[in-house]
Amino acid sequence: MSREIIQHKPAYRGNTCWGCGPENPQGLQIESVWEGEECVCTWTPQGHHGAGRPNVLNGGIIAGLIDCHAMCSAGDRFTRREQQENPGSDTVWYCATASLKVDYLKATPMDGPLELRARIVEMSERKAVVVCSVFAAGEETARAEAVAVRVAF
Amino acid sequence: MSREIIQHKPAYRGNTCWGCGPENPQGLQIESVWEGEECVCTWTPQGHHGAGRPNVLNGGIIAGLIDCHAMCSAGDRFTRREQQENPGSDTVWYCATASLKVDYLKATPMDGPLELRARIVEMSERKAVVVCSVFAAGEETARAEAVAVRVAF
Repeated sequence: MSREIIQHKPAYRGNTCWGCGPENPQGLQIESVWEGEECVCTWTPQGHHGAGRPNVLNGGIIAGLIDCHAMCSAGDRFTRREQQENPGSDTVWYCATASLKVDYLKATPMDGPLELRARIVEMSERKAVVVCSVFAAGEETARAEAVAVRVAF
Repeated sequence: MSREIIQHKPAYRGNTCWGCGPENPQGLQIESVWEGEECVCTWTPQGHHGAGRPNVLNGGIIAGLIDCHAMCSAGDRFTRREQQENPGSDTVWYCATASLKVDYLKATPMDGPLELRARIVEMSERKAVVVCSVFAAGEETARAEAVAVRVAF
């Protein structure tokens, strides 16, 4: 499995998505990399991402990180499957979010990097279920499940 | 019920939350107002909030809007109950998100104002369940349920 950052692949060139677009300077600019069966995103909050309490990350930012990381992971997996099944195919799959459920286990601190670890637990022709946890200093602070639907564009 | 914008109340003075803080110029700066039993937020996307596709709002931004609008609604309701039960009390309740589930029904466009409509469907001593829908030009594009836990700070 490639250790290349998913969002650095040609498919993301010019992408301005708020969460995962490498070309949105006001966005989160997440970077997702496979480590075996887990897709990992390391990301450091900026001062304006807070929840209005000292050293607490906003829950919407957490949801946004998970959403894009999960969709990028699933899209990359659909594209890889496509290439395995149809060698030479240049179809690139992306994913749209059908649903996202986040359980906030405890406050997520902002004073250091976070690690998101995602795994694809189900995958059918067009749909994938992704589970993803957020860790701060090794401690799990949020746990989520996202349903991804593949789209080509 | 007050028609005052919740985030303009003294309790939000100096609040820099990314989603609902009136004093975060890089944040979403949502404004929530009760209309009877519904709490309504009208919000217009900015160009950098997209999903990387023309006229499609990012799903994390949608989750962030819902999260803060739901928590502000629930916190305001807890504070009002407090004042009814303990007249003269100056306790202000806020809410932390325990969980958030968003169903993305269709792409949410970015070319006009969105309307979020939230209702509190359950409320116990410390917890509230809030349902919230997002409408674009009158069409429902996302539907969510959030569990809020009250906190004083």
